[in-house]
Amino acid sequence: MQIGIVGLGLIGGSLGLDLLQCGHTLHGVSQKLPTCEAALARGAVHTASTDLRSLADRPVEVIFICTPIPLVLPTLEALAQWLPPSVLITDVASIKGSIVTAAISLWPNFVGGHPMAGTESQGIQAAVRHLFQDRPYVLTPQSDTSPASIEQLRGLIQDLQARVILADPFTHDQAVAWISHLPVMISASLIAACSRESQSEVLQLAQKLASSGFRDTSRVGGGNPDLGTAMAQYNRQALLQALNTYRQELEEVIHYIENQSWSDLHQLLQITHRERQTFGE
Amino acid sequence: MQIGIVGLGLIGGSLGLDLLQCGHTLHGVSQKLPTCEAALARGAVHTASTDLRSLADRPVEVIFICTPIPLVLPTLEALAQWLPPSVLITDVASIKGSIVTAAISLWPNFVGGHPMAGTESQGIQAAVRHLFQDRPYVLTPQSDTSPASIEQLRGLIQDLQARVILADPFTHDQAVAWISHLPVMISASLIAACSRESQSEVLQLAQKLASSGFRDTSRVGGGNPDLGTAMAQYNRQALLQALNTYRQELEEVIHYIENQSWSDLHQLLQITHRERQTFGE
Repeated sequence: MQIGIVGLGLIGGSLGLDLLQCGHTLHGVSQKLPTCEAALARGAVHTASTDLRSLADRPVEVIFICTPIPLVLPTLEALAQWLPPSVLITDVASIKGSIVTAAISLWPNFVGGHPMAGTESQGIQAAVRHLFQDRPYVLTPQSDTSPASIEQLRGLIQDLQARVILADPFTHDQAVAWISHLPVMISASLIAACSRESQSEVLQLAQKLASSGFRDTSRVGGGNPDLGTAMAQYNRQALLQALNTYRQELEEVIHYIENQSWSDLHQLLQITHRERQTFGE
Repeated sequence: MQIGIVGLGLIGGSLGLDLLQCGHTLHGVSQKLPTCEAALARGAVHTASTDLRSLADRPVEVIFICTPIPLVLPTLEALAQWLPPSVLITDVASIKGSIVTAAISLWPNFVGGHPMAGTESQGIQAAVRHLFQDRPYVLTPQSDTSPASIEQLRGLIQDLQARVILADPFTHDQAVAWISHLPVMISASLIAACSRESQSEVLQLAQKLASSGFRDTSRVGGGNPDLGTAMAQYNRQALLQALNTYRQELEEVIHYIENQSWSDLHQLLQITHRERQTFGE
């Protein structure tokens, strides 16, 4: 299949590496010439250009938009001027509701996607093979999406050895608010709070003693600030709902500790010990 | 050296495995006979007994109390009746202020300790060699602690290949409130909040999609409920202070998102991205 990838970072580059190995023909676009050159050198694409319009000159059947979230719709709007309507366009943004709603009206043959994969690194140099293997890959088709487009995309995702999960885009956004966007905000708040310790000997000792428990809990809060801000901006409503429920739970924990209600705290920690095992593999 | 270990779980067992290999003679005590047998079989001790008093019949020079936090002082109180005052006693509890204050008055030759090491598992079967290697091991001597006792303990910790860090017990408690006890409470609140999602299709999708970001942020909140409760109980004041500062940071994040103050949120996430790197190795 002839496939276009716009945005050759960690996700776009990793998609290219796997799909090219599966025998597809890959055409990449990046705003930066060095990224184009690196993608070619790494074997993530067969052709690469800094000009989005170059994809109109290729017989592409499917395009993955792998740009940062704020550029997904502007990219789609530009592509829509030049491409034949048969081209299936998809994205990889971690929020779907607002993007899919706007995207469908710009390009009826659009199917939203969200591969649940990533690493702490960014950019084409961070791209790796098998990034999506055994990971969930959410697709959010609408009721009027053509079954042929869903199947076309499903085939490519199976080439990546990822697990296709179909979901409503707004249900998806509520789910990722819980398991991805809320964790970023509470983890960032942890780092910000610790950094406010005013006694230097306490802060220095804390920095020296921080081990795996702190590192794990603070990991996503120390991530890419652009991505964290975009999550909040594009999934604001669902994230605020999650934050409100979280705040209530936190208040309950504080209340138990203030009132020395140790059996209540113990009971809560027994529930969370059990409940955690219901999330993820 | 002749060494006693009371409590043959993950920490006590792992101490035994390493110290025995270094040529010391190890005498273990556990309330449970099967644990004594397992510790002998695994090579963590040379002798094992369910009777705490058995240590009075051995020529022990140093005793590690590795029981759960609530049993440290009762164990010390019992040992104090039977042992000669030359015996150095230490513990491994993750809180030090209240324990050290009480312990010193029961047994002047007491030096508080806290090895910053662990795994998700518990019990003698989870004990492993080299658990403490390259990890911080905090000692909290008082101004009147004998230098000889500090050096004696320092030598054993060097046998474990851990890094000795001397600290005031209350400074230690404030530091671990930030990097260990606060993370448990905010991580548990995350799990509790997610579990309160009332729409079953959202909850089920969240459970299916939860990946490394959620797993890391929720890990310590899904840990041992007894330990989490004891942390709060024995380090209540420092933990409440940390929770209050954390609550303020969380409110700030919620405020930014409610008011769509994206540049403020971005700035905060830039700071946390940078600050996280100052904690831990």
